[in-house]
Amino acid sequence: MYVSLKDVAERAGVSFQTVSKVLNGRKATVSDATRERIMAAAAELGYVPNALARGLVKQSTYTIGIVADSFDDWFLSQFVVGAELEARNRDHSILVSTEAGGAAAEQGQGYAQSLLERRVDGLIAAAPSAEEDEKAAQVLRSRLPAVAIHHVPGGGVPVVGSSHSATGRIAAEHLLLLGHRRIGSITGPSRRRVTESRMRGFRSALEAAGIAYPDSAWTAEADWSAEGGYRATAQLLARAPELTALHVHSDMMATGALAALADAGRDVPSDCSVIACDDLPFSGYLRPPLTTVRIPARRSGERAVELLLDLIERKPVGDPPKDKVFLPVELVARHSTAPPRS
Amino acid sequence: MYVSLKDVAERAGVSFQTVSKVLNGRKATVSDATRERIMAAAAELGYVPNALARGLVKQSTYTIGIVADSFDDWFLSQFVVGAELEARNRDHSILVSTEAGGAAAEQGQGYAQSLLERRVDGLIAAAPSAEEDEKAAQVLRSRLPAVAIHHVPGGGVPVVGSSHSATGRIAAEHLLLLGHRRIGSITGPSRRRVTESRMRGFRSALEAAGIAYPDSAWTAEADWSAEGGYRATAQLLARAPELTALHVHSDMMATGALAALADAGRDVPSDCSVIACDDLPFSGYLRPPLTTVRIPARRSGERAVELLLDLIERKPVGDPPKDKVFLPVELVARHSTAPPRS
Repeated sequence: MYVSLKDVAERAGVSFQTVSKVLNGRKATVSDATRERIMAAAAELGYVPNALARGLVKQSTYTIGIVADSFDDWFLSQFVVGAELEARNRDHSILVSTEAGGAAAEQGQGYAQSLLERRVDGLIAAAPSAEEDEKAAQVLRSRLPAVAIHHVPGGGVPVVGSSHSATGRIAAEHLLLLGHRRIGSITGPSRRRVTESRMRGFRSALEAAGIAYPDSAWTAEADWSAEGGYRATAQLLARAPELTALHVHSDMMATGALAALADAGRDVPSDCSVIACDDLPFSGYLRPPLTTVRIPARRSGERAVELLLDLIERKPVGDPPKDKVFLPVELVARHSTAPPRS
Repeated sequence: MYVSLKDVAERAGVSFQTVSKVLNGRKATVSDATRERIMAAAAELGYVPNALARGLVKQSTYTIGIVADSFDDWFLSQFVVGAELEARNRDHSILVSTEAGGAAAEQGQGYAQSLLERRVDGLIAAAPSAEEDEKAAQVLRSRLPAVAIHHVPGGGVPVVGSSHSATGRIAAEHLLLLGHRRIGSITGPSRRRVTESRMRGFRSALEAAGIAYPDSAWTAEADWSAEGGYRATAQLLARAPELTALHVHSDMMATGALAALADAGRDVPSDCSVIACDDLPFSGYLRPPLTTVRIPARRSGERAVELLLDLIERKPVGDPPKDKVFLPVELVARHSTAPPRS
């Protein structure tokens, strides 16, 4: 197991107290010779500094906790990549947990419980399933510095992310510009704020163009998966064959939507255009290559950690303090969208 | 910040020492009334147990470290999902780090350095880029319980995963059974053991069928990405138009391979069959639906944590101790493979 301070003290022939002070970075009045003897013994034995012992002194564990629903999601895995790299650049580590609700709650664990028990220096709330959870919000507001990538009831926690309504608006404007008027929506779960916001942006663009959107007739809900996207699209096509374009709320669901269109014998884009959002690494290699609105997932992770560490280190984070950091999204026009057949 | 033991002691009107013993689970001779007063004060103030303080007593942090190359990879993100769930079932948390090499080494950090500084109870090596790294192997062997999902030079660390050679063999046997004789390979990086093993299994099946495989002529190397798969396939098709089937070393690369075949005007499967491996959540929604060999990524994460916790808790892990845990792979036959045109 780990080499202890006692091991180092014995090897160096120096008192435990002195070794503890020197290796844990506390003030110690020791000669250069003693200090060197300690360092040599530590190196020889392979002693690794103890961040926990240091943390007890400095009241910091140099660790950030991320609470997620699951890492089984492209956005979130990219987000964690960005967060981990930025954290390591600033000498912090990432502790991950999926204890936002569901299974964790069934086990009687509170929101972020194990992260708090491990005394993380700050929390990143990345579990949209908790976006209406008052108890989770209280934990995020009261305990320690926190940022969120989703709504927190009652506010008080800075949010980092992209504008979902802008994403919906950009998708709609692209299709309108191509001349589409009958546009369907394959959405995420309707109870989620991201879905509401995307639909709000989408509808606002249609309204600006003087087009009424018949919600129930032209919308089908799915669960972010390719399978869900396939099913919802097949149902919507059967019910609304007049549609000339689809706005799909994720590239993963759009993979299913393209398959459903192919299976229904409808050519994309000449029979039906498809625009999605995310820009997954394979989206340009679907056939046809998918037009989408790119969401900066990895950059969101970096930015969330930057902001959180500024809060932890009590750096000024803007005056007045920012409560929302929006990262821009952008249209990636490929070949799944085209003007409708006249 | 966190509610301290001192805060609880003051609120309860009980000595710090007593509160510390009670809340950190050490033996303490206290009356039921005092214990209740302490618990009530702790609940009132929102005290969260300190796993680090407990850890100093029990010599455990109840934390497992995962060293990865990047979480920007389907297999690994699934692996982490499984690992985190299993760890939480057994009251452990997951600390993740990408400090296997590359950027971490440039920053002068050793393999798993920050995880060791945080005194994880065990390590999961999930960074194939370190599969030939002697120093990493030494860390894994000498410090603390460890398991790996890849080769560790010199051994001594149990490996959890699937048989890559079986994966290659199953893919080849499926194509042979359909009647293919001229089969190309789109491989991962050739320096990686997974690539070598898959090719070994693939070649052994061809040899058993009496077919010689002209390595350099029928193989193209890529980097696991859809883009790399697209390019390698386009090059291989141009150079070896006689091929009637492709064995692609990942579903992500196969997404690119299907696109390259479509762009070259070759129908899948009638002009060319494609079999891959992984079974990503969208693979059945590619068109045609992708035939693949399923790798149990999430189950690998669960199994790695199970084995590691058994090692940590010094439970018997088999007699003789297992040094390899292989999880079965299985053929998922969809519609991207068919007999060659006669």
